[in-house]
Order: sequence, then C-alpha cells, then structure tokens
Amino acid sequence: MYDCIIIGGGPAGITAGIYCQRANLKTIVFEKETIGGQIASSPLVENFPGFKSISGVELANNFYEQAESLGLPIEIEEVLEIIPGKINKVVTDMGEYEAKTIILATGAKYRLLGLPNETNLIGKGISFCTSCDGAFYKGKDVAVIGGANSAVTNALYMSNLCNKVYLIYRGAKLKCEEVLKDKLEAKDNVEIIYNANVKEIIGEEELEKIILDNNRELTINGMFISIGMDAETKLVKEMLPLSEKSYVLSDDCTTTNNNIFVAGDCREKKVRQLTTAVSDGAVAATNVIKYIENNQ
Amino acid sequence: MYDCIIIGGGPAGITAGIYCQRANLKTIVFEKETIGGQIASSPLVENFPGFKSISGVELANNFYEQAESLGLPIEIEEVLEIIPGKINKVVTDMGEYEAKTIILATGAKYRLLGLPNETNLIGKGISFCTSCDGAFYKGKDVAVIGGANSAVTNALYMSNLCNKVYLIYRGAKLKCEEVLKDKLEAKDNVEIIYNANVKEIIGEEELEKIILDNNRELTINGMFISIGMDAETKLVKEMLPLSEKSYVLSDDCTTTNNNIFVAGDCREKKVRQLTTAVSDGAVAATNVIKYIENNQ
Repeated sequence: MYDCIIIGGGPAGITAGIYCQRANLKTIVFEKETIGGQIASSPLVENFPGFKSISGVELANNFYEQAESLGLPIEIEEVLEIIPGKINKVVTDMGEYEAKTIILATGAKYRLLGLPNETNLIGKGISFCTSCDGAFYKGKDVAVIGGANSAVTNALYMSNLCNKVYLIYRGAKLKCEEVLKDKLEAKDNVEIIYNANVKEIIGEEELEKIILDNNRELTINGMFISIGMDAETKLVKEMLPLSEKSYVLSDDCTTTNNNIFVAGDCREKKVRQLTTAVSDGAVAATNVIKYIENNQ
Repeated sequence: MYDCIIIGGGPAGITAGIYCQRANLKTIVFEKETIGGQIASSPLVENFPGFKSISGVELANNFYEQAESLGLPIEIEEVLEIIPGKINKVVTDMGEYEAKTIILATGAKYRLLGLPNETNLIGKGISFCTSCDGAFYKGKDVAVIGGANSAVTNALYMSNLCNKVYLIYRGAKLKCEEVLKDKLEAKDNVEIIYNANVKEIIGEEELEKIILDNNRELTINGMFISIGMDAETKLVKEMLPLSEKSYVLSDDCTTTNNNIFVAGDCREKKVRQLTTAVSDGAVAATNVIKYIENNQ
C-alpha cells in the first residue's frame, strides 16, 4: 500500500515525489515513456532558474538522480486505469497497486503538423514554446504556424526578437481576438500568410526551409508550431471535471475527489512552464501530506 | 525608461527578470540586501528540482550568473517609494527611475525569537521550514516553537520523521484548530510543553541545546521557529489590497493596479517554497509581457 502514487515522471511528478519522499511518505512514480517528460526532448533550457544553460536530457537526468538519492522509486509502467475509492487502485501494464492518494501529473502534448521530418527536427529548429525557446532566435527569421490566440501571441512575442516573422494560417481569417490581430498587423516585421499549410519541412541537421502548399518557399531558422495541445487526461475523464480542452479543473491542485490531486501541464492554468510545473508538484504534494496526516 | 522594474532579487524576482529579459524587455532588478533573498542563508537545499543537494549561496549564485549571462542588471539599491501612474516612478536610495510596469517580489521574513546566538545558528540547527529542512533531521530530536496552525502542522510533519519532537508554546492552550491539536496529542513521540519560552540557545558550530524559562534543558538537533512571517509589503500598503497578515492579495500575480504585479513570498498563497516562488516569477513576467504588448 502506497501513501501516494504519482502518475507521470515529468517535472511536476518528480517534484511531487521529492516532496512526498522527504516527508517520509511511501511514494512511487509511474512514467509510461520518458523520465523528465516533455522537457527531455528540449535541446537547451535557459529559463529554468539555477541553470544558465542545460540540455533537457541533462535536466531530466538531474531530476532522476535527485529522486534516486532520496530513495524515490520511478518505474517505467503505463497506468491503464484508476479505480477510485477510500483506497485507490491503480492498474498498470505490469500490475495492480493500492494507494491512499494519487497525484495525476500526466502532462499534455503539443499537436504536430503530421509531416515527415517534423519529429526529427524538434529541438533543431522546430519548437512550440516561445517563452522557452524564442530567445534562441533573436535577430533571425522564424515562422509561427496557427491562427488562434496562442499562435498570434507567439508571433507577437517573436516579432519583438526576430528580424522577420511569418505567421502561417490555413484559414482566410485569424481565429484570435481582434485586438491581437490588429497588433500583429501593425508589426513591420510580420507577414501573415493566409490560406496556407506547411507541405514540406526541409533540413537535415537543422531546420532550413519550409515549403507551403501555395508553393512558396520560406528560408527560416525556426518554426513554432502553435496549433494546440492535448491534455493527457484520459485516465480521469469519467472521474474529474475537465475543461473544454480536457485539462483537469483545479485552482490549487486539489480535485473534486478528496484523495486525488493534479499537478503540471494536465491542469487547467494560464502558464505552462517548467517553473509552474515544479510549483504544482510541490503544492500537490503539500496537499497529499496534509490529507495523509488528516486520515491516518 | 524601463519596461519593467523588479523589486526584490530573490528567486521570484530573478526568475521574473530572466523571463522579461529573454522577451527583450528593458528590465532591472533592485535588491536591497542579498541577491537570492532568504534562500542565500540556507545551508543546504534538497527540495528544488534539478539539484540533488546545493547550498543556498551556491544556488543564489547560479541565479545571479544566469541573470548576468542574459544581460539582466541586478542592482543593490533599496526601493524607498513607488509613485504609481501610467508610467510608474520608483525612488531608491540611489536615484529615481521610470517603468511601464513593476513586479513586487519583496518576499517575507520569518519572525525570530530575538535571542542571542539565534541568527548565528540559522542553518546550523535553527530552521523555519519543515518541508525544506525537515528531512535533514530524520531519526533525530527537534523542537518546534509556537502554538498556531503552522507550528502544530510543522510538529506533525516532524513527528513522522523524528525520534522525538517537542512543541514549545508560551500559552496555556494551543491556538491551532482543534483537529490538529488532537492529532498532535495522539502522537507518541511528541511532547507539548505549555507556558514556556526558550530562554537560551546553546551551541557554537551547531545547535546543541535550548534552555526554557521553566529551567528545563532540552538536548536537540534542530529547532523550527514557527511564530509567523512578516510580509515585506510596506511599499504598497497604501496602494494594493493586503491580507490581514499584510500579504498582497492576488490569485494570478496581477493586482488591482494594472501595471503592478506581484510574485513570490510577499503574495498571499498557501505554499511558500522555492518552487512556488519561481513559478510566480514566470507568471508575473508573462503578465508583464502581455501588458507591454497591449500598451505599446
């Protein structure tokens, strides 16, 4: 019987694990793919305080070593089902476990264009998060793909850094707020390309060029794909209230189920960053510690 | 004219600075005492993800070097006054500055007992935060000083780790919630000492013993002083709504003043940790970036 099972071994889950373990709770983390989660695929992280510049793999490795040094087990097992109760059951592809509390830290995934060469070049010119990676393209030329608020906000962010920003949108009219559109149109260094899709991504070691389905070729240093994220919340979709976009609704990492907590990118919130993920981890764990204390 | 003046060079302020600087905003951080804030006085940090074990000074130094590498200026100047407006004026002991936005990241300070030898032994047996430093006392004997919710919660936390926990309270009846009191009284390894104050703190290199004003001597490895915190919010007390305990009320790092933001321990919130401070820094900076974009 565990005091806490943490589902997801990204920054939120591992931080929660560190806090629970240091509080002497019997804790385990299940991760289905990659320890460190999304961050492990980031070539360079420069916005996490404490590290001037570190590769995502190295940072993920640091997280892992820290957890290990505290005796926190992190297992590569996929959780298939949660059966909630006073004692929760967690079914993985390897076995069945019991836990007084669960922290859901399953993250979210950026949507891809679905083109050949796309996943190869993630971190080598293809990126998703401007406040993470935007600064690497200062003075350069980039494209942002998408037409909703996040894409236009990303294009605005990059326009303050870049020589030239292309916003490429498949539709004839941006889906963002009017005020954002006006701001973007006022930028001298932004070109909005409507009714266009990326057809081909060119580059071997790094992104060199994209070809649009209107046959235009754009030579760029970076491309930010801003066509949405998918929250990894299938496990709880019958159990917890989700937002329209399937994030778990929670202000303070508690949920409507008093022994299930949520942390990181899978939680509904405004800013999804490493910093906010580790904060969620600490807050969720603090809630767990309190729950265990109150239900001993 | 700055895009953003950040008041306070602790983890929240420096993180906010890193985000603003990377977004190409003209930013400066003013710190009145110690870069790194409270964390700089912590001998060992083991609950900040990414570092298995690091001294507070080293971590603060990492923050500083990261800021410096991005060209973010951090000046040792004490801010004396904020004159709010469409353009805010910030008066320091060295000069006067203008800024489109301000992030208040001035922190909070733990209250001390006011005894000789107390400040000397902070980080050498005397501590304030159980989820930060509690794990260092696993299997040992500690005292917690105080009688309100935070003291009793800290004593409960430590009771799960320690051989023996003394809770020392000056009053005849704990001020905490009844349910917490019941839990604490049920712990075999906790002794509550009422009507007592710490009179003397003994120890040179590290804490060895405390003497109470009832003349009892307690040999302990650690002492957690849990008699409250003071938010450093004098600068804004006429300007922003504060909680009863003088923290700035804000759910999302915005305030009632649309170009003044708040981050870190001086904000009203439930969990005050390094992780939550850096999260606030990123969120406040994200708000600033949006404000600047919308008011260009």
